[in-house]
Amino acid sequence: MRIALLGGTGDIGGGLALRWAYHTNHEVLIGSRDPDRARTKAEEYETELSSRGVDCTVKGFANEMAADRAGVIVLSVPAYHASDTVEAVADKLDDGDVLVTPATGMKRDDEGFHYHRPGAGSVTKLVADAAPDGVSVVGAFHNLAAGRLADLDADLGIDTLLVGEDPDALDIVSRLAEEIEGLRALMAGGIANAPEIEALTPLLVNVGRHNEGLHDLGVRFR
Amino acid sequence: MRIALLGGTGDIGGGLALRWAYHTNHEVLIGSRDPDRARTKAEEYETELSSRGVDCTVKGFANEMAADRAGVIVLSVPAYHASDTVEAVADKLDDGDVLVTPATGMKRDDEGFHYHRPGAGSVTKLVADAAPDGVSVVGAFHNLAAGRLADLDADLGIDTLLVGEDPDALDIVSRLAEEIEGLRALMAGGIANAPEIEALTPLLVNVGRHNEGLHDLGVRFR
Repeated sequence: MRIALLGGTGDIGGGLALRWAYHTNHEVLIGSRDPDRARTKAEEYETELSSRGVDCTVKGFANEMAADRAGVIVLSVPAYHASDTVEAVADKLDDGDVLVTPATGMKRDDEGFHYHRPGAGSVTKLVADAAPDGVSVVGAFHNLAAGRLADLDADLGIDTLLVGEDPDALDIVSRLAEEIEGLRALMAGGIANAPEIEALTPLLVNVGRHNEGLHDLGVRFR
Repeated sequence: MRIALLGGTGDIGGGLALRWAYHTNHEVLIGSRDPDRARTKAEEYETELSSRGVDCTVKGFANEMAADRAGVIVLSVPAYHASDTVEAVADKLDDGDVLVTPATGMKRDDEGFHYHRPGAGSVTKLVADAAPDGVSVVGAFHNLAAGRLADLDADLGIDTLLVGEDPDALDIVSRLAEEIEGLRALMAGGIANAPEIEALTPLLVNVGRHNEGLHDLGVRFR
């Protein structure tokens, strides 16, 4: 399968790229608004993987071209770029493509990090509203610490929650998630259930800040 | 220590009462608006504990009297009764008493359960606003499945998150939480960080409904 990580030069996109390239045989495409930056990052990922004896090709492209070539497109951009990015690549998306959104809105005050809920209800819903007809949207990978994901020596042992309306798309993303060692995919219902998932991300940051020895946290449901 | 569980005839209060009576030597008082109901439930808890070889006294009282007698008062009532209950017992609370609030607001729609955030910002904040001066409020035990808590055969292996402004009160509640076998207390900052904790409760319900074999869920941060 071909997976495009739009904004794949950033932290969460980079982490997912490395994990999929490391644990699977899927073809990983790095997208960026700046194709040179995408290519540079793709080479960095290749070097990291090669140092671990994994010989694979990670290619960098402009977001539009990465989206055009892939069947699963992960929108690993900040929440405030999410709809713009969908619009920028919309005419490169085909019927049956799966658009995955891991972004969450956060704001910070003196006390800590908080969920900044967009007017649409959630960032996932924002993306679903912006996606062309025929493209299925799945919310996933919201609650993963990017640094831990990108550290291929780090054990995960955590869960990711999926929301979406299309059972086939959910199935594809669930399998992609579980191909990452130590990651379990759990279903959380339809896109209306996304806000509580997105709100978990600032909570993870707060808990990491207030408990010694805990950082780059994820959760396991049990 | 004397712990009063106001609304201790309900599910989360009953679960905490049983666990503290089972795992610790603290004196557990069950409060209810109806003292007869409190006494009946207290006897039920005693019978359950006695069947497990634990000989302890659980007493039932009107909420006011339970609050009067205890140093730690857990407000285990539904969110919409939280402020009323604080007001009802306010003149029985002493300086230095610790008021613990585990309630969260939830609403249900076709998709699932959602966080129903009160105007005050969180149920924890609502309780803090209603509490008399000199009484410290700690938010805790929001994300525990009542049925699993009340089943003394069930392993926990989960976390509870604490928010509050008074380090001494947080310390007391943290120790009480960790005296329950399998429960780890983690700090999550000040009361302004409560909404994301309260929002985790409907998420746990949604995840339980959408994944076979998972129910009465809690979380472990890792």
